[in-house]
Amino acid sequence: MTRSIGKVRTQFFEFHNPKKPLRLRVGGLMPRFTLAYEMYGRLNADKSNAILLFHAMTGSQHAAGFNPRVPGVGHRWTEEVQAGWWDGFIGPGKALDTRRFCVICANYLGGCYGSTGPASVNPSTGKPWGPAFPVLRMSDIVDSQMKLLDALGIERLHAVVGASIGGYLALLAATRYPDRVKIVIPIGTGVETTIYQRILNFEQITAIEGDPNFRGGDYYDGPHPNLGLALARRIAHKTFVSLETLRERARGEVVSQKPPHGWYEMNHPVESYMLHQGDKFVRRFDANTYLRILDAWQWFDLVAEAGATDFHALFERCRKQEFLVFSIDSDGMYSPAEQAKLVGFLKKAHVPVMWITVHSDKGHDSFLLEPRLYAPHLLQALGH
Amino acid sequence: MTRSIGKVRTQFFEFHNPKKPLRLRVGGLMPRFTLAYEMYGRLNADKSNAILLFHAMTGSQHAAGFNPRVPGVGHRWTEEVQAGWWDGFIGPGKALDTRRFCVICANYLGGCYGSTGPASVNPSTGKPWGPAFPVLRMSDIVDSQMKLLDALGIERLHAVVGASIGGYLALLAATRYPDRVKIVIPIGTGVETTIYQRILNFEQITAIEGDPNFRGGDYYDGPHPNLGLALARRIAHKTFVSLETLRERARGEVVSQKPPHGWYEMNHPVESYMLHQGDKFVRRFDANTYLRILDAWQWFDLVAEAGATDFHALFERCRKQEFLVFSIDSDGMYSPAEQAKLVGFLKKAHVPVMWITVHSDKGHDSFLLEPRLYAPHLLQALGH
Repeated sequence: MTRSIGKVRTQFFEFHNPKKPLRLRVGGLMPRFTLAYEMYGRLNADKSNAILLFHAMTGSQHAAGFNPRVPGVGHRWTEEVQAGWWDGFIGPGKALDTRRFCVICANYLGGCYGSTGPASVNPSTGKPWGPAFPVLRMSDIVDSQMKLLDALGIERLHAVVGASIGGYLALLAATRYPDRVKIVIPIGTGVETTIYQRILNFEQITAIEGDPNFRGGDYYDGPHPNLGLALARRIAHKTFVSLETLRERARGEVVSQKPPHGWYEMNHPVESYMLHQGDKFVRRFDANTYLRILDAWQWFDLVAEAGATDFHALFERCRKQEFLVFSIDSDGMYSPAEQAKLVGFLKKAHVPVMWITVHSDKGHDSFLLEPRLYAPHLLQALGH
Repeated sequence: MTRSIGKVRTQFFEFHNPKKPLRLRVGGLMPRFTLAYEMYGRLNADKSNAILLFHAMTGSQHAAGFNPRVPGVGHRWTEEVQAGWWDGFIGPGKALDTRRFCVICANYLGGCYGSTGPASVNPSTGKPWGPAFPVLRMSDIVDSQMKLLDALGIERLHAVVGASIGGYLALLAATRYPDRVKIVIPIGTGVETTIYQRILNFEQITAIEGDPNFRGGDYYDGPHPNLGLALARRIAHKTFVSLETLRERARGEVVSQKPPHGWYEMNHPVESYMLHQGDKFVRRFDANTYLRILDAWQWFDLVAEAGATDFHALFERCRKQEFLVFSIDSDGMYSPAEQAKLVGFLKKAHVPVMWITVHSDKGHDSFLLEPRLYAPHLLQALGH
């Protein structure tokens, strides 16, 4: 029997430590930042039951239950994000069982759902950071969340879990802080940025930066670069779902007769569907945050960011951990070949690893939609 | 022994027939238009040795030999297009042997290499057509070229050949004018617009139309929508070549340190390579032409445009023709599954067909790059 978590609220971790600031990978120090996070379940007495969950690119700290409002996020907290993005996975009796574990999920540093990001006010100017926000790498996001764990008194995580680029963060947490992680569960992810991802990401970056409203990232006092951000979302969206799913989803769309941008008249429901995906997205996301995450993705270097010399040395650190790696057979974004590389490195380094491929017609998004494909192995790996 | 064709020139077919104008599919009449075309080899006495070749989306009439200049095209006739795009296939002793055949290739109606298109001057206003240029469908492009054949006195083509969306035109010519075509050679093409193509085309359409310099297509007296057109080209380019090829080609690129559009600093040679592809393209192509071809592609309906009721009735018209269908195993734009549909319809309609898959690591572009993979079967099908 599983139950839903019900209403939840976002909490805020205020880091402020001028003496030991967060040291960013490409340079610069952050003596002060906020992380928005949520917790589901209770920390046990020795704080040994925490699971750190990393959201994917446009996700948030709100992984389970219902959250109608996040202070400071305003209009971006649309209805679409008020239901937790992994609600099917987290709760009493669910795969991440909150009767046993305390699940923690934080919005990325640089994010737009309550953590300090480019849209936040820069205390030294009283205006949004915009382009002046520090350049972030994936390891900075992980490091900032380790400060949160420090504050919560959690020395060692029972598990880290992450799908998509959340998987990069899980792998970084496991390899950069090997003593702080017991179980590692990467889902539909990889050890590097693939050439296909690089190309699509670059298309998206130029779509955003090419929007004249972007103004180099300094747009908060004017119109936002919605055309560019919507196009970026459409470029990405097709890789989340299988083409078959796209066709199915589009079937219900009404084809607008109105040319969306001027001359061209749409011909097919999939065009309206894609337009809708883009329009919906720009209401809930900040272009600078999106760009910053793309930037960190393009520059992602697992080995270097974890401070290792090569993949073998990197994963040798994980010999005391246990890995459960998930592949999705229809994943067009992180194909099973990517997880095969990870598993190959792990085996070579003698790290205990179990590798499961789920068969789905939903593509990359399967990890959001089909808890029953993942739950049995998650339960087994996390321990009942 | 093969020889090169040497220097060639573009000719211009001036259609002018107010009494029997070109009747466009979505409405409207064109009493007057120009087609830029080239011919290689000589028409024989009974004009039975003509091969009509359809170029692909951004190709031109200049398929073979060297052509340093096309009157009226100006700066768009860059060095890149001065060598014929199918020079390896056309010439004395080559797959399309000009000692035997007369190969004809015309720039699409709506094009920007000498045929009447949105950048041409509208005689009734004295200014470029821009958005007022008539809406075109694939069948209009084919019909306009049939007027050229009429003028040349060619009743029946020895063959029609087309790759990529040029293959749509070859199939339309064969089915819309079954008595005028003897041999049909579609290469890396299909019978419909796939869902993946629809999505990518729509991304490109919105990239162009979203560029504020596009101004609904009315940009000839100001800055051109180069950012949008370059992004569109990058979106398309990745589907022409295999990812392995992309990686290889990118290896030689110098990574520019300069952020191309503002904030983001490029990280990988494939980004510079893609940026270069886009920049190179906007120098040689007109955004309105590109948009019009995308439009015709999105709206392409082989059955309806050929005036048939279904695919079976459509291809039953072709029983006296012979088909040679080529697939490229690594084609990411028109996968072999697309040609399988075509071949299935042909077989069901008892049309003589031979289907050949070439194995290449070059992806869709193989048809431009590897004449030796195609030549033996082209020679056999066309008859020595």
